Amino acid sequence: MSSPLDDVVRRGGEWLRGVGPMHEIVISTRVRLARNIRGYPFLWRAGAEQRQDVAETVQAAIQKAPRLSDLVHLDVEALDELDRTLLVERHLISRQHAEGTGARRVAFHTTEVASLMTNEEDHLRIQVMRSGLQLDEAWEQINEIDDALDQNIDFEFDPQFGYLTACPTNVGTGIRVSVMVHLPALKLTNEVEKVAQAARDMKLAIRGLYGEGTEALGDFFQISNQITLGRSEVEIIDDFRRVVIPKIVDYEHAARKALMKDRLHALDDKIWRAVGTLRNARLMSSNEAMQCLSHVRMGVHIGRLSSIDLQTVNELFIQMQPAHLQKLQGDRLNGEQRSIARAALIRSRLSSN
Amino acid sequence: MSSPLDDVVRRGGEWLRGVGPMHEIVISTRVRLARNIRGYPFLWRAGAEQRQDVAETVQAAIQKAPRLSDLVHLDVEALDELDRTLLVERHLISRQHAEGTGARRVAFHTTEVASLMTNEEDHLRIQVMRSGLQLDEAWEQINEIDDALDQNIDFEFDPQFGYLTACPTNVGTGIRVSVMVHLPALKLTNEVEKVAQAARDMKLAIRGLYGEGTEALGDFFQISNQITLGRSEVEIIDDFRRVVIPKIVDYEHAARKALMKDRLHALDDKIWRAVGTLRNARLMSSNEAMQCLSHVRMGVHIGRLSSIDLQTVNELFIQMQPAHLQKLQGDRLNGEQRSIARAALIRSRLSSN
Repeated sequence: MSSPLDDVVRRGGEWLRGVGPMHEIVISTRVRLARNIRGYPFLWRAGAEQRQDVAETVQAAIQKAPRLSDLVHLDVEALDELDRTLLVERHLISRQHAEGTGARRVAFHTTEVASLMTNEEDHLRIQVMRSGLQLDEAWEQINEIDDALDQNIDFEFDPQFGYLTACPTNVGTGIRVSVMVHLPALKLTNEVEKVAQAARDMKLAIRGLYGEGTEALGDFFQISNQITLGRSEVEIIDDFRRVVIPKIVDYEHAARKALMKDRLHALDDKIWRAVGTLRNARLMSSNEAMQCLSHVRMGVHIGRLSSIDLQTVNELFIQMQPAHLQKLQGDRLNGEQRSIARAALIRSRLSSN
Repeated sequence: MSSPLDDVVRRGGEWLRGVGPMHEIVISTRVRLARNIRGYPFLWRAGAEQRQDVAETVQAAIQKAPRLSDLVHLDVEALDELDRTLLVERHLISRQHAEGTGARRVAFHTTEVASLMTNEEDHLRIQVMRSGLQLDEAWEQINEIDDALDQNIDFEFDPQFGYLTACPTNVGTGIRVSVMVHLPALKLTNEVEKVAQAARDMKLAIRGLYGEGTEALGDFFQISNQITLGRSEVEIIDDFRRVVIPKIVDYEHAARKALMKDRLHALDDKIWRAVGTLRNARLMSSNEAMQCLSHVRMGVHIGRLSSIDLQTVNELFIQMQPAHLQKLQGDRLNGEQRSIARAALIRSRLSSN
């Protein structure tokens, strides 16, 4: 059984390449815009036909836009559960979009830098992802996409409030900026609260790897704005670039330095035990894999570990997840089978030979 | 600072060679006899001079005996704490003997198959150790030593009760037989209670690695008789050889088979994680090292692991202990330093190169 997603599985998204400014600590930058089409009700009171119309209108507009003509279009409603989960693991659609009902689609660049979800919470959600801290680049690209679509779609816009959205927390700019950071040292020194405080001071939220309502896994955190009304996009982005992210990056660097100075043996022990576990375990949960890969990633960045390739580590973060594992194996796997397959995949990718 | 024990550190005792009957599960066989010299009070009411006399009388008798002339004699009272602990780790003296006060000595074969403690709980304790299940051989040798000393020492013996000892639990034969068994599979399947029940049925005690009052560490257990009165030495030894040990060995073999049949992935996971931890950790407690070495030892015996040398594993059980570590390093080490040195020793001995 072949699927339009078979190709996606083996590729790595651009945002996971582990490059870009501050990439040692800033994994990726994501900007998304929420848009709705004038003349259609918000989705929570739209009928099936209206949803269908919205999906087709958006797809047609995308296909007409000159720089969006090469996007991959997928009918999310028609995909099986495994493919939908795969897209979530890839951050190409949200969990909510995967688990929803009714007509809904996604279109994305094969490089995975941009994805457009139709009928998620709003009629349209545009998302741009970059590796490292690339706020301006992401903002510039999403702006271009928004403008291009604006030529062919009449978005709901109120002169006083700005863009109107299904959930009031998005009204205004409809922008959400999310920066994913890797803070293993702050986790080891029990100082993540400092980051949470810095975020709260700027009215930003701190969340786990898959956004709202998810736990921080393997020391990865998402910092995102909560306010979309009363601050311009440029002001919001500036908060991230000039204040919050540099502060968080400094905290993490300071924690790494402190660990190397005062607790080098304990730090090396954490890093090398992670290597030992990844290279030897025969059963592994995704949580444990995430945690071990996290320590290995830090180990390479701080120069305590040189025998492991970072690109491989970055790919494993994605490939060891349930849907990816099953796609790679070409078979449905139960919990224990996934645990076996995950351990085997990691061993083969990280073997010392 | 050189010590008479520097040589001992690097050697492995005969009983740790990992050979002998049933050596996969039976680590060692130990037989000891408790003896007291007529004309001297039991130690708990002996004065300093009497203790001294006892020590000298025993040493003279040993040196006169034809087959005991090449024993190493050590004045335990004069040894520093580290050397005394080393002898305990080597099972050449008991904890009680190490921590006691007043004149006390030990004499042992350089092969460490026999050791004679003066002024432990009784005036004399003779101990013979063998690897694997070698009850007859151990009994034969200890009998010879006992007879040889009997030529020159008048032991307290009562025609009705037998040998008289400081503690009433040893009166009679004064014999204690202890068999050390390695039961990792029964531990994993939560069936150690079956062994404890089999031991209780035969009025035997089950204890940890260092005898009375010690916890079972790394899946090692000591099975020993509690009754010394009313049963002959031969009857006691027969209980072990014909009933208890074969039953325990069968239980452990059955548990290993069941794990290999029903939970092979989980079993391999335990074994290989132990390998990964031993080869990579930078800090390691003796408890964790014991547990990991235990799983590795089983892994080699059941054929799930071939890249590791059993002799090395057996030596590490002894060498990774606190006093051995400090002797090997030639320096006093605090807790963290021992943890670092232990991890480094194990890594270097088990490295895959």
